[in-house]
Amino acid sequence: MPNPFYDRDIVSIRDFAKDDLEFVFDTTDSISRLKHSQRGELGKGRTLGYIFYEPSTRTRMSFEAAMASLGGSSIGISDLKSSSVEKGESLADTIRVIDLYSDVILLRHPLDGSSRFAAELSQNPIINAGSGSEEHPTQALLDLYTILKEKGKIDGLSVAIVGDLKYGRTVYSLLYGLANYKVEVHLVSPPTLRIRKESLYEIQDKLKIKEHSKLDEVLPETDVIYVTRIQRERFPDVQEYEKVKGTYTIDENTLAKSKSDIAVMHPLPRVDEISQSIDHTKNAIYFKQASYGKELRAALLALMLNENLSR
Amino acid sequence: MPNPFYDRDIVSIRDFAKDDLEFVFDTTDSISRLKHSQRGELGKGRTLGYIFYEPSTRTRMSFEAAMASLGGSSIGISDLKSSSVEKGESLADTIRVIDLYSDVILLRHPLDGSSRFAAELSQNPIINAGSGSEEHPTQALLDLYTILKEKGKIDGLSVAIVGDLKYGRTVYSLLYGLANYKVEVHLVSPPTLRIRKESLYEIQDKLKIKEHSKLDEVLPETDVIYVTRIQRERFPDVQEYEKVKGTYTIDENTLAKSKSDIAVMHPLPRVDEISQSIDHTKNAIYFKQASYGKELRAALLALMLNENLSR
Amino acid sequence: MPNPFYDRDIVSIRDFAKDDLEFVFDTTDSISRLKHSQRGELGKGRTLGYIFYEPSTRTRMSFEAAMASLGGSSIGISDLKSSSVEKGESLADTIRVIDLYSDVILLRHPLDGSSRFAAELSQNPIINAGSGSEEHPTQALLDLYTILKEKGKIDGLSVAIVGDLKYGRTVYSLLYGLANYKVEVHLVSPPTLRIRKESLYEIQDKLKIKEHSKLDEVLPETDVIYVTRIQRERFPDVQEYEKVKGTYTIDENTLAKSKSDIAVMHPLPRVDEISQSIDHTKNAIYFKQASYGKELRAALLALMLNENLSR
Repeated sequence: MPNPFYDRDIVSIRDFAKDDLEFVFDTTDSISRLKHSQRGELGKGRTLGYIFYEPSTRTRMSFEAAMASLGGSSIGISDLKSSSVEKGESLADTIRVIDLYSDVILLRHPLDGSSRFAAELSQNPIINAGSGSEEHPTQALLDLYTILKEKGKIDGLSVAIVGDLKYGRTVYSLLYGLANYKVEVHLVSPPTLRIRKESLYEIQDKLKIKEHSKLDEVLPETDVIYVTRIQRERFPDVQEYEKVKGTYTIDENTLAKSKSDIAVMHPLPRVDEISQSIDHTKNAIYFKQASYGKELRAALLALMLNENLSR
Repeated sequence: MPNPFYDRDIVSIRDFAKDDLEFVFDTTDSISRLKHSQRGELGKGRTLGYIFYEPSTRTRMSFEAAMASLGGSSIGISDLKSSSVEKGESLADTIRVIDLYSDVILLRHPLDGSSRFAAELSQNPIINAGSGSEEHPTQALLDLYTILKEKGKIDGLSVAIVGDLKYGRTVYSLLYGLANYKVEVHLVSPPTLRIRKESLYEIQDKLKIKEHSKLDEVLPETDVIYVTRIQRERFPDVQEYEKVKGTYTIDENTLAKSKSDIAVMHPLPRVDEISQSIDHTKNAIYFKQASYGKELRAALLALMLNENLSR
Repeated sequence: MPNPFYDRDIVSIRDFAKDDLEFVFDTTDSISRLKHSQRGELGKGRTLGYIFYEPSTRTRMSFEAAMASLGGSSIGISDLKSSSVEKGESLADTIRVIDLYSDVILLRHPLDGSSRFAAELSQNPIINAGSGSEEHPTQALLDLYTILKEKGKIDGLSVAIVGDLKYGRTVYSLLYGLANYKVEVHLVSPPTLRIRKESLYEIQDKLKIKEHSKLDEVLPETDVIYVTRIQRERFPDVQEYEKVKGTYTIDENTLAKSKSDIAVMHPLPRVDEISQSIDHTKNAIYFKQASYGKELRAALLALMLNENLSR
């Protein structure tokens, strides 16, 4: 099978069929097994150009580390404040210029559609590093890959997603990714932070979703619990925030009520929605998840840059 | 012919004789034809150290991309705010230290003479990435190279420069570069933003310059139109600014009044002095210009770092 | 002798026995003699991850240059403001994640003990790039190495340390380093900025220390004078500050009262505690010191990353 990702944009997780997902996961496995010296040839002399309209240290460093592991370089704008953009330059012009300076472009932008727009303008492939309120495709890919590595499968699992489901862009991308598998999804959030149902329109028939407001209801059956941060700013009332925060915190008590092999995930950074007291448990896989993320992103970059790479 | 740029500072476009310009342009052609692997040897293990006292994302990224394409690294200060300079360190000390950490130094500084001063202090060669109100030599080099590539020649052309001619440092450098050729120059600006004549003293006999305040006057004869940004802050009266901005905007109407092969250039970033509606035309060469810039800067770096490089 | 620094943390100068110091200094000599191509293999494909909770352009660039000279890459956070840390992430989580993205971690943090804490959490080795008020081990190492290179020995020297001895973290680290040698130490400071004696408890029997408030007293016998910056903010009274600043400034008059071969050192950045008028003298070794620093840090990184490196 030829490499379907050569020179291809990564704009939305919705563009990934199940075959695509498997191709990426297999390639990640292969890349991770390569010797340093072989791996270091895959990006040699190539440049990743990044533009962050919103700062995201995590995503930037993950991609920079991935690119470095392939022998390539990274240049870009991590801090919009000190860039030409402040002089009033359009997104289109910024994309067109970074396109001239790099071989693959990484874009984080607050608006929906920004990456699709950028992909139409640029000669080189675009990677969406988070756009608008619903798209963060490489996060979804690494989340799925983490589940696969830790659970050995995705089909047949019961996945709970907890926290701010209304504003968390990783949640929507993950759900679209999960729609390729036979999974049971439980969404747990305070009433004011429920998922926007209309955004799931395309996958409503593919995914079995149940909504909850109490975490305890779902724990006994859950294989994977995906926790997101709840931001104080979302609540008009601080007391309401404190109450919700308390009931959703994952700690030893939560684990005691769960399957013994429940996998606890988090896109990071974490504040206090997962207690540090469970960091040492085998259930805590949020740091492994970040590590899988670097490998998966290295695989994506290698695929985009090397036509003849086979999984 | 030996490489005259080995270990040499690039402080001012005034230091470039016509022979020098041609040597740089020829080398840029050769470098651009090299295979990735050959090119990647020219800067291997070498480090570009940059210091930006004024931020300039464009210039920084262009040089970083150029250095990466030669197999080299870049380190430095792109954001003065987080640097030792804030603790009161002198320019001299800052230069002396970056000199120890790198093989070639890139300096952007608001004061005239800063690069010359730095060149006297440092062991390694300095590149002026913009200083004071009149010097931006690598921008002038890439502007000339762009004209040469797009028009096949520089001699005999009619070049119009439009916009803020008083404060635009690229304009003065370009004029000094053009003085090496037989060109007709038309300067188009509002009366308050006219060129500072005294700054052209050294080239007044070499360059045929005419001044205009109306763009339409020059269009029918112009081969190359070089557009610069007009900043609102320069005008005491906003209405005056709006009026000027309108009459100088390059759009389809402008092209209709021009030679069919007029080349529209801009140092970027652009705001609205060139309409996006002409981006798709063959006349719009401002993005190609940025691309030539990366290649030309790679050639300069390769020449400065490799004694035996021949064009 | 095997390489004792392979995969080892560098948290405190107090962890270095005299043998360790000599091993590092010898390796720095060897690394400095390597050909570019050999040196470029020592860090190939490896990544330095840095996190600066306080900005320090000097230290960051010195390490980045050192890593680049070994063929390696650097990624990280130089400016806390644009990082996830602002979202409330703990130091522990930040360390755990950068640990996944890099092969060695460089940490600058305002709190005492931060590097020791980080070293316990991370799989990869930590380098303390300055913590709390007393630790900056790589600065102490490069200071000692500079003395050794410039004076040919450390034993038997008379070393004066001048300036703000209360708050200067480099001073404490240097004193702990010097305690491995037979040196005479003269501490010169205004009464309000005297050294905190309790912080020297562990070395009080090893080091002969005398305190002074007048610089002139110590000059005739001093072999090495180590100057630190005095910050205006430390003084309740500006006039007091101005008076102190004046009497401690090192200039031609100071040199005239000193041994002809006195070595003047400074961790940089300098403001005006050393007059620029002595920069050209053979006594001024503060820039050489920065250069030795890059070499010593390259040696440390090479040792930490390469098990079989012998001095």
